[in-house]
Amino acid sequence: MYIHGYGDRESERLLAQAASVVRLLHGDTRFPPGSRVLEVGCGTGAQTVSLASNNPGTQIVAFDHSTASLARAIDRVAAAGLSNVAFLHADLFALPFEAESFDHAFICFVLEHLSHPIAALRLVKQLLKPGGSVTVFEGDHGSAYFHPHSEIAHRAIGCQVELQRRAGGNACIGRQLYPLLVQAGYEAPCVTPRVVYVDATTPDLVDSFTRKTFTWMVEAVREEAVATRIIDAATFDAGIRDLYRAAEPDGVFCYTFFKGVAAKPAHLPREGGSNGRDV
Amino acid sequence: MYIHGYGDRESERLLAQAASVVRLLHGDTRFPPGSRVLEVGCGTGAQTVSLASNNPGTQIVAFDHSTASLARAIDRVAAAGLSNVAFLHADLFALPFEAESFDHAFICFVLEHLSHPIAALRLVKQLLKPGGSVTVFEGDHGSAYFHPHSEIAHRAIGCQVELQRRAGGNACIGRQLYPLLVQAGYEAPCVTPRVVYVDATTPDLVDSFTRKTFTWMVEAVREEAVATRIIDAATFDAGIRDLYRAAEPDGVFCYTFFKGVAAKPAHLPREGGSNGRDV
Repeated sequence: MYIHGYGDRESERLLAQAASVVRLLHGDTRFPPGSRVLEVGCGTGAQTVSLASNNPGTQIVAFDHSTASLARAIDRVAAAGLSNVAFLHADLFALPFEAESFDHAFICFVLEHLSHPIAALRLVKQLLKPGGSVTVFEGDHGSAYFHPHSEIAHRAIGCQVELQRRAGGNACIGRQLYPLLVQAGYEAPCVTPRVVYVDATTPDLVDSFTRKTFTWMVEAVREEAVATRIIDAATFDAGIRDLYRAAEPDGVFCYTFFKGVAAKPAHLPREGGSNGRDV
Repeated sequence: MYIHGYGDRESERLLAQAASVVRLLHGDTRFPPGSRVLEVGCGTGAQTVSLASNNPGTQIVAFDHSTASLARAIDRVAAAGLSNVAFLHADLFALPFEAESFDHAFICFVLEHLSHPIAALRLVKQLLKPGGSVTVFEGDHGSAYFHPHSEIAHRAIGCQVELQRRAGGNACIGRQLYPLLVQAGYEAPCVTPRVVYVDATTPDLVDSFTRKTFTWMVEAVREEAVATRIIDAATFDAGIRDLYRAAEPDGVFCYTFFKGVAAKPAHLPREGGSNGRDV
């Protein structure tokens, strides 16, 4: 379940996030010309534009289960003048594709919302040709820290983590990409951290990331966190103030995304062994 | 005050730390040939060897207030066949150098142990020629996270943080390098995070960093943490077990060091303004 909502501020937040971290995340995500690439859970297309423009020689098939998000993604990709993306309204667990029909797959900020991320990675693996690759991006809210330190701000972040957990997701999944890829049966996983370090020397990043990507995301769970009594309103608001405090001239904010790349084995190993328990 | 102790295991720990992160930390630390470089608080010389061998054309002056550490540093640098380091037994706050007598300064894992890191940075600034640079490295224990997540392991780490705080230091100082350098009156500070990401694809790093650098460091405060009743022995031991758990084949460990480089202003601004309050 997508926990962040679908409002205008969330849409602006996703744009700020994509703009602020696009090079960090996607600067080295390139697929060979002629490849057929599946984007899993494209959402509003915030990543799709980077993916498609960085890989003009590829044919991208992007899908999402939310028609509202998909409509925005279609508009966004069209506005960017990109013609190498086909959009599909579909659910990950009921995709109308043949096995081994994609060269590569791209999954950005999706696994964090799934109850069974390993099952999802296995489904994607079935769609990949032998030797094909999966590229996964996830954040990790446990990687957030800042100056000045604030326990209350960490409690506010904890509300987001807890609500995402209750919705079946895992906001701290980034650190787990390596074991997830191994357990899903991929080969040669390579995970690299991508740190967003923000101080006053990069005022654009202070605004687009510290404020409008991270703090807004936490702030968006205020009503639900208070209604479900995970936290009281005053404490939550104090925590949010402390997050904005880290965006002041002497403040520092750190957050880490993880990129994982792994291959579908060229020769399929026998399924049903000890790895089979996780689906 | 140096909190980690001076025993044989600590010495092996420092070697493991230096070996595992040497390229990450010092790979891009180069000074122009002919420079006179001051290493502040060289300890047992774990970093001095990298500094001196990476900068063969420089004259390094390294000092420490511990004679035992200094003796080890002298032996280590001699064993490495390096002849461009002069060693001095001295205290940072009583150095026998003239103002503006060094081109550059190098301070690695020292500020975390000081009650007045800004005062130390200012003293170093006095020793630098106008336009000279300071290079600072610090870790940040608040940047440690791992899979599987363990609250108890974070409590064990918290003991190290708390004991270092009681000794006048700050184990989470890495994130603060930017404001510290600004407040000490340096110009153009540039801080970059250096993430140590460890999974089973790098077994050497699992052993040298997760086990022998980080977990050993936390483990070393066991007696003092239990004696001062910050934690009970069983809880601490369970936390340490969970840190070793992150070194298992499906485990992941993350830690971030910070490198800060900044310049002494070419023309000294008037001292005693609003920045003066921090000394």
